[in-house]
Amino acid sequence: MTADAGKPAATAAYAACDWGTSNLRVWAMSAEGEPLAVRQSADGMANVGEGGFATVLDGHLAELGLAEDLSVVACGMVGARQGWAEAPYLPAPARIEGLAVHAITAPGTERDVRILPGVFLSGDGAGCDVMRGEETQLFGLALQAGGDHLACLPGTHSKWARLEAGGIVDFATFMTGELFALLSRHAVIRHSLDVDLDAAGYSDAFEAGLKDGSARPEAVLNELFALRARDLLTGAGKADLTARLSGLLIGCELAGAGKRFGEESKVALVASGMTATLYERALRAAGYTVATMDAEVCVRAGLHAAARHLFDLEGART
Amino acid sequence: MTADAGKPAATAAYAACDWGTSNLRVWAMSAEGEPLAVRQSADGMANVGEGGFATVLDGHLAELGLAEDLSVVACGMVGARQGWAEAPYLPAPARIEGLAVHAITAPGTERDVRILPGVFLSGDGAGCDVMRGEETQLFGLALQAGGDHLACLPGTHSKWARLEAGGIVDFATFMTGELFALLSRHAVIRHSLDVDLDAAGYSDAFEAGLKDGSARPEAVLNELFALRARDLLTGAGKADLTARLSGLLIGCELAGAGKRFGEESKVALVASGMTATLYERALRAAGYTVATMDAEVCVRAGLHAAARHLFDLEGART
Repeated sequence: MTADAGKPAATAAYAACDWGTSNLRVWAMSAEGEPLAVRQSADGMANVGEGGFATVLDGHLAELGLAEDLSVVACGMVGARQGWAEAPYLPAPARIEGLAVHAITAPGTERDVRILPGVFLSGDGAGCDVMRGEETQLFGLALQAGGDHLACLPGTHSKWARLEAGGIVDFATFMTGELFALLSRHAVIRHSLDVDLDAAGYSDAFEAGLKDGSARPEAVLNELFALRARDLLTGAGKADLTARLSGLLIGCELAGAGKRFGEESKVALVASGMTATLYERALRAAGYTVATMDAEVCVRAGLHAAARHLFDLEGART
Repeated sequence: MTADAGKPAATAAYAACDWGTSNLRVWAMSAEGEPLAVRQSADGMANVGEGGFATVLDGHLAELGLAEDLSVVACGMVGARQGWAEAPYLPAPARIEGLAVHAITAPGTERDVRILPGVFLSGDGAGCDVMRGEETQLFGLALQAGGDHLACLPGTHSKWARLEAGGIVDFATFMTGELFALLSRHAVIRHSLDVDLDAAGYSDAFEAGLKDGSARPEAVLNELFALRARDLLTGAGKADLTARLSGLLIGCELAGAGKRFGEESKVALVASGMTATLYERALRAAGYTVATMDAEVCVRAGLHAAARHLFDLEGART
């Protein structure tokens, strides 16, 4: 758990929360959308006991020295069925205004806590998908970098989205990061792999896997087994096989996203660290021009845009 | 553990073992290749303590009433590095004669026990692969049904192989069954799935997944996540989502195998039970003419062909 030492109680207009499955970030925010202080913790949705959301939130806000009646806007899995309270998904196309209008008021607290909905894509075809938290990041991205974008948010469940005039018109989720974790922890080939992607990192083996995964995504089930064959036959080390796996899966994701979202030459990548390095390489190899954005900056911008619709921030400042 | 009640000691010319990772099958065999009795147990390679292979084998042979000096031929993971003793892989193209010539004699027993090698495919490109046990099944298939075949052996690690004039000239392994098990047991989407493929079985949902997986294999990472979205949005039940997953993965395998082995219109399918049902449907939907073979019959035919090269079966009969 990390906390800013400052006591922004006097100037905070509201608090913003990015409340995911595993982590919680709380910012004290100015009326203009500047972060005044932050607390980051492992109090994600999955780690909060039943009925404990209000208590957890109050604790973090008190540590930040914020008033007991300060309003809060939150996004992410806190609004899932198994979260604090369900904020039902909005259909795509969706805009930030709709998100604010359909925010729910969290029950069981005197404080004014608003939870933003996620977004869904209906349809029996390719288009059945959901997001919860990323929509706020995407709206923030649109505010930061212009309203028309193809965006890639890599992770456990990588999101690709098309934004038009600041609205989310289409998106798709790829199970890339989760599959990497499952294979490196539970598969027969785990003995040939490291569990830590950062340990493998960027290498020629990543490039080779990326090339094969993007050129022949239909061979991915074969390539996964072939990692074991490569271990037995070529004596390739764990680091190279892990990097190859990472390249194969990211290549397969890019092949799928390329076919789904076609013809875009620019992509906004919301990532940091080794994930950003690997996806930058992969996206450039696939012919995209890449602009890398900071996830925290994006989600804060989205939360602030929602807060401006939800709260009287001008009034709060006086 | 199952055992035939008969006591074939007098007529057995040798014993044949299909000794895999999880299971062991031992047959008392006539000189003509007829099975006289069988024992089936969970004494697979992974369940045999260090140095215990000879003891385990002797126990099963004694239960079958077979002589202490009866010769044995075995295939499968018993010949892996972590098995009884390593029988190094032979390179493809490979023939049954080569398998017999390069069989190793198992150490630590007075009995003449020969372990057949596996087969590998070298190369840094699409062709890095290994099999151990399936090669014997494939040679048996060729003896049963003619020497030129495209063959599909579905399972945890599905094998596709091209046989020419009775030899294995090319093959590829797909991690289809293992990925199904990993996803239904460990993935976030496990809550939307059954762990038992048989429980899901053949259905319209399987057909729909098959169609999507084979037509858009590059979207497989998206389709896996979309199972969760379908659960949340459409209220599809576990059985349908499990059947869809099965269809998606088999469709993806068929897309990869189709591209790899191209232009074949006939396939020999070595499978039984629900797996045979699902693959028959899938292969026919992809335009193949399917001949389904029994795996036990195939592996016994391959073991017998090897035994004829290894042992003096005519002498044993007199």
